[in-house]
Amino acid sequence: MELIAGIDIGGTKLAVGIGTRKGKLLAQARKATEVERGPSAILEDLVTMVLQTLQEVRFTYGEGHLIAVGVGCGGPLDRQKGTVIEAPNLPGWAGFPVQRYFEERLQVPVLLDNDANAAALAEARLGAGLGHSHVAYFTVSTGIGGGIVINGHLYRGASDGAGEFGHQILLPEGPQCLCGKWGCLEALASGTSIARRAREELAKGETSALLEKVGGDLSLITAHLIAETAQEGDPLARKLFEEAGYYLGLGIANVINILNPSIVILGGGVIKAGSLILEPAVKTAKERAMTALAEKCEIVPAQLGDDVGVYGALCLGIELLENQETA
Amino acid sequence: MELIAGIDIGGTKLAVGIGTRKGKLLAQARKATEVERGPSAILEDLVTMVLQTLQEVRFTYGEGHLIAVGVGCGGPLDRQKGTVIEAPNLPGWAGFPVQRYFEERLQVPVLLDNDANAAALAEARLGAGLGHSHVAYFTVSTGIGGGIVINGHLYRGASDGAGEFGHQILLPEGPQCLCGKWGCLEALASGTSIARRAREELAKGETSALLEKVGGDLSLITAHLIAETAQEGDPLARKLFEEAGYYLGLGIANVINILNPSIVILGGGVIKAGSLILEPAVKTAKERAMTALAEKCEIVPAQLGDDVGVYGALCLGIELLENQETA
Repeated sequence: MELIAGIDIGGTKLAVGIGTRKGKLLAQARKATEVERGPSAILEDLVTMVLQTLQEVRFTYGEGHLIAVGVGCGGPLDRQKGTVIEAPNLPGWAGFPVQRYFEERLQVPVLLDNDANAAALAEARLGAGLGHSHVAYFTVSTGIGGGIVINGHLYRGASDGAGEFGHQILLPEGPQCLCGKWGCLEALASGTSIARRAREELAKGETSALLEKVGGDLSLITAHLIAETAQEGDPLARKLFEEAGYYLGLGIANVINILNPSIVILGGGVIKAGSLILEPAVKTAKERAMTALAEKCEIVPAQLGDDVGVYGALCLGIELLENQETA
Repeated sequence: MELIAGIDIGGTKLAVGIGTRKGKLLAQARKATEVERGPSAILEDLVTMVLQTLQEVRFTYGEGHLIAVGVGCGGPLDRQKGTVIEAPNLPGWAGFPVQRYFEERLQVPVLLDNDANAAALAEARLGAGLGHSHVAYFTVSTGIGGGIVINGHLYRGASDGAGEFGHQILLPEGPQCLCGKWGCLEALASGTSIARRAREELAKGETSALLEKVGGDLSLITAHLIAETAQEGDPLARKLFEEAGYYLGLGIANVINILNPSIVILGGGVIKAGSLILEPAVKTAKERAMTALAEKCEIVPAQLGDDVGVYGALCLGIELLENQETA
C-alpha cells in the first residue's frame, strides 16, 4: 500500500498523519511544540512521529510504504527553496531548510506550503468543497488567510503569494493592520481585531459583561471570550461579531466578484462562533456581491474541524505526487 | 496558410481582423455599428466583412483558409449557449444566437466572449503581458472591467464571471454604482464617475475652467474633457484624476493581494489620460498592496491601443483552437 505523510507544524502543536492517495487518514499523532528547542530538534521529533505512525499503519494493515510527504507550516514560505521565510510563532526557523531535512531523513519527495493553502486544499478535496471546481477558502483566526483551489489544485500566483484575502483593503482610511498597511479585512474581522474593538469600546465607557469576566483587565479579552459572552446575549459582544461579520461579508463579496468561485468555505477559530459571525457574513456577501455571481456561489463553514492541518499536509503530499506524474 | 478571424462587436463600431495562429494580423476592416438595423443584418454585414478580408489576405499571400473565429462583444454573455445575455449598447441582441449564426455561415468553430476578457487575452499574449505567466488586466472606460490570464489562458471562474475588478467594494458606504451596489471601484474611478464627481464639485460651487468649456451646462462634462482640462493645469480637474487614480490604485492592490499577478495591465479610454491617472494609481497600488507581492508585480499601461478589440477577438479564436487540440 502506498502511503503519504502529512506534517502540520504549528506554533503550539505538531501533528502527523499517515494516509492514502485518496486522502483517507489511517493513523495520526500529535504533541505540543516545544518552540524553545529550535528547528533541528523539533524536525527530528517529527521524523520519529512519522516513523512511529507508519509502524502503526503497517501493524494494522499488514503493509505500507511511504512515497511522499506534505508539510504545512505557518508564515510566508519559500516553496522553491523549501524554507520558512518568516514565522512569528516559530522563532529561529527563518531560512531553515525544512523540506531538505525531511527529504534526507525520509528519502521521499517533500512539498512544503503554508497552512492556509494546505487547509484550502483539504477542504476543497475532502471537506466542504467536495465536487466543486472553483473553491475560495478563508481562514479567520488570529489573522485572516486564504487559499484558492481550481479543479483540485492550488492556485498559487506568480510568486506563491496568492490568496491573501485578509489583506484586501475594505476601509481605505481604516485601522492599521499587523501587515503595516491600513484598513485590511484582517484589521476589521480577525480574532485579534475583534478583541481590539472590544477594548476600544470598553475604554470609551461602553458597558458589557466582558468587563466583569476579565476582572477589569482589558488585556485578558480574547475573541473566544467575546463569542462566549455574545452567546449569553451581551449586546456589545453581539455588536462586535456583527460588525466583524459585516466586514468579512464584504471581503467574501470581493473574492466572489474577482474569482467567481462556486463555493466559499469559511474556516478558522473565529468561525467556531457559528451564526454570530456566519449570519452577518453570508447576508452581507450575498447582498453586496454581483447578483449573478452571488447566486452561483455557496458560502459554507469548513467541515474538517481541528484535523484540517493534518488533512491539509496530506493533500499537499498527494498534490506533489500528481504534479510529478503529469510533469 | 491557416487563418483565424477576429470579430469585435461594439455599440459604436464593428471591426474584423484576419490573422495567423501566432496572432499576426494580416488584414482588417471596420465600419460603424448601425444599431437600429438589429442583430441579423449586422451579423450578416460582419460575415461579408470576414469574407472580403479573407479575400484580401488570399490576394496578398496567394492562399489561406479560415479555421476558427473568435468574437468579442460587450455585456454579460452566455458562453455555453453563445448568446448575449444583456447588452445595453446593442438593443435587441439579448438571447440572439451569435455564435451559432457565425458557425452556420462560416462553417468553422466559433468562440464568443466578452470584450474585457478578449482584451485581457490580447494584452497578455501579444501586448504588455508578453512573457508573463500571471496577468491581470483592467479596462478603465465608461465602466471598469477586467480579465485574468494564467499561462496564456483566460481564467473564467465557475460560471464565466471572473475578473469583475470594477465591482470590488472599496468604500462600503460609498456612492451607488450602475450595478446597483455601493462603493464599487467602478463608482469611484470610471470615466462615468469622474464626470459625476466633476458635476458634484461644480454644483457645490467649486470653480474650474471646465464650467466655461461646457458653457455652464454640466451635462456636457465628460472624463475626456476633464482630462484635457487637467492637462491645461486646472486644479479641480487634476484633483479628480488624482482621486480616481487613488481608488484605482486601491483596486489594483486588492487584485495583487488576491491573485499575485506578475503584471497588472491598465487599458481603456480613461488610461489615455496618461500620468494624470497612472501616477496616483501606481503609487497607491505599490504603497497599499502587500510589500512582497507588490515588489514582484509590474503595473503598466496597455500596448495594443485601439486595435485591442480585433486582437482580442483573434486571440479568442486562437484559444479555441488550442482548447480543441488539448481536449
